[in-house]
Amino acid sequence: MQQLTVDLGDRSYPIHIGSGLLDQAELLKPHIAGRQVCVVTDDTVAPLYLERLRRTLSDYSLLSVVLPTGEAFKNWATLQQIFDALLGARHDRRTTLIALGGGVIGDMTGFAAACYQRGVDFIQIPTTLLSQVDSSVGGKTGINHPAGKNMIGAFYQPRAVLIDTDTLATLPAREVSAGLAEIIKYGLIRDREFLQWLEDNMAGLRALDPELITRAIHRSCAIKAEVVAADEREGGVRAILNLGHTFGHAIEAHQGYGSWLHGEAVGAGMVMALDMSAELGWLTDQDRQRARNIIAAAGLPITPPPGMRAEDFRRLMSVDKKVLDGQLRLVLLQQLGQAVVTGAFDGSALDTVLAGIGQ
Amino acid sequence: MQQLTVDLGDRSYPIHIGSGLLDQAELLKPHIAGRQVCVVTDDTVAPLYLERLRRTLSDYSLLSVVLPTGEAFKNWATLQQIFDALLGARHDRRTTLIALGGGVIGDMTGFAAACYQRGVDFIQIPTTLLSQVDSSVGGKTGINHPAGKNMIGAFYQPRAVLIDTDTLATLPAREVSAGLAEIIKYGLIRDREFLQWLEDNMAGLRALDPELITRAIHRSCAIKAEVVAADEREGGVRAILNLGHTFGHAIEAHQGYGSWLHGEAVGAGMVMALDMSAELGWLTDQDRQRARNIIAAAGLPITPPPGMRAEDFRRLMSVDKKVLDGQLRLVLLQQLGQAVVTGAFDGSALDTVLAGIGQ
Repeated sequence: MQQLTVDLGDRSYPIHIGSGLLDQAELLKPHIAGRQVCVVTDDTVAPLYLERLRRTLSDYSLLSVVLPTGEAFKNWATLQQIFDALLGARHDRRTTLIALGGGVIGDMTGFAAACYQRGVDFIQIPTTLLSQVDSSVGGKTGINHPAGKNMIGAFYQPRAVLIDTDTLATLPAREVSAGLAEIIKYGLIRDREFLQWLEDNMAGLRALDPELITRAIHRSCAIKAEVVAADEREGGVRAILNLGHTFGHAIEAHQGYGSWLHGEAVGAGMVMALDMSAELGWLTDQDRQRARNIIAAAGLPITPPPGMRAEDFRRLMSVDKKVLDGQLRLVLLQQLGQAVVTGAFDGSALDTVLAGIGQ
Repeated sequence: MQQLTVDLGDRSYPIHIGSGLLDQAELLKPHIAGRQVCVVTDDTVAPLYLERLRRTLSDYSLLSVVLPTGEAFKNWATLQQIFDALLGARHDRRTTLIALGGGVIGDMTGFAAACYQRGVDFIQIPTTLLSQVDSSVGGKTGINHPAGKNMIGAFYQPRAVLIDTDTLATLPAREVSAGLAEIIKYGLIRDREFLQWLEDNMAGLRALDPELITRAIHRSCAIKAEVVAADEREGGVRAILNLGHTFGHAIEAHQGYGSWLHGEAVGAGMVMALDMSAELGWLTDQDRQRARNIIAAAGLPITPPPGMRAEDFRRLMSVDKKVLDGQLRLVLLQQLGQAVVTGAFDGSALDTVLAGIGQ
């Protein structure tokens, strides 16, 4: 087992990564204050792992909430099911919520924990590659609004993150690729050597070679922890974690949440950010092509969905959370391994990239 | 004009108290980061003060959201109207929300600010006596759930609180009394001298004598600021601010939110807490009677609504946020001016108080 720490003063927390962690009660117990625990999961993950977690937590008064699977249900109505269950079972302020599932479950459970009785403890047990390397770490929680993804939410840190790499065995190949999108992102924004290593080992990573995938998760979480510790509430540098996400969110919103996987939209979105960076003369055409190839090799789309037009992107990106006082800000690359968040770019570069869509 | 500070490190904020503050843009401007401002108010307060505030803020891009009046609308559906308006007008993360109204507007606007794009700035402009002395200070925000009051919310501090005492001129007498309930509470829990002063000046306070009411607001906010600075997230001492509230919330839930005013329920609830404190032998019968008389003199009910029974209280109090691991905790008085939060009381004292209801 490997361990990392997200360093946030008195709200610091550990990330445990390894095989068989779901059975290790001693990793969870230090982070559970009372007798009540509520496991929130979905109807895909529940049949696979809920019973096992229930056995691990047999010392506690355990409530479980099984939600419908998918981004389409990441909304207030589903969140309300968690509150109803907690209140129905008289869970008090010392209850601990546990998110058992992918990013949608993690985001919703975290937001429920942030809001229930004005804040209770929660623990992340991410079961998809994407949530293990990204959404379970850093405290971004929330739900979608019809007008935009993650528009309603909170910065609210978990007490611990438990990454059991065995859970990846049941993950469909398409979701492995979606997770690799965020892993590649860390290389692109912050670590050229890691990007090189990913390039060299992509086949083994897609095959979920235990040693390779553990190393990739560890390095991804380490980079995320570093960035979050430097800027918890995204006042500055943290925004680089959103490389490809402004374009990606527009794709998700256009297609309807849940049609493209988040990681797939980020894959295509990162290619658009690479194109813009090259268009601005920041990235060589060779580096752009190389990065594009890595994304393709991970099994990810490298173009937006057919039928999506330049004006769709403009409209959907104008509500992005990185828009400040009306100005669109984007995460772009100055070179491979070095990202910047900026609104000071030549608008014609964006025009050119958007004009190229669908050609 | 008088000024106080709520001391919370880098989240400290000023409370301004005085006449005519609604027109003073210079009090608001230092707390507004961007160009966008969204004033949230209700259909009672909007006709009285919205236009004036709009003139004061004419330098900004101003959006206003007018909600239906009353505790019955303090729910997710109403909150959603704020999010819809903000997203419809493309308000970004640098927007500032302003709560113009009573406690319901303050709680909902604060919670909307806590959640919108994971947190934006907000300012409290409370226009009722109750919200001026209580809910606008301290960062408790939230909405009700059918199973309990304020069950969904956040601790989220405003950037500033602006108390324009002129707004009290339009307040119905019943709401003045409701505000006095919380003012009396501060005397009961923390300041025997202030309680004496309230006893001596109750007629003038009910008549809204400017000098008296300003002094009462100032002292109330000072006590609240002190308690909140010591314990922002109610891990300990802050709970004393809830004297009478556990009983009071049960009354409100039983009657349906909005039928009794919050302050009225707190008035009757405080009398029940006084009775229990006397029953436990902590409070002399003379002091109990004296405190009860002050509450009555403020024009507040001193008994629960007819028809409400002991088992109603038991059921409704069991979901109180102060319940921990199944144990009910209450705020009680050791003497006038000194409160304690405890679960270690003789249960038969509660039985006796509840048995006395309706007799």
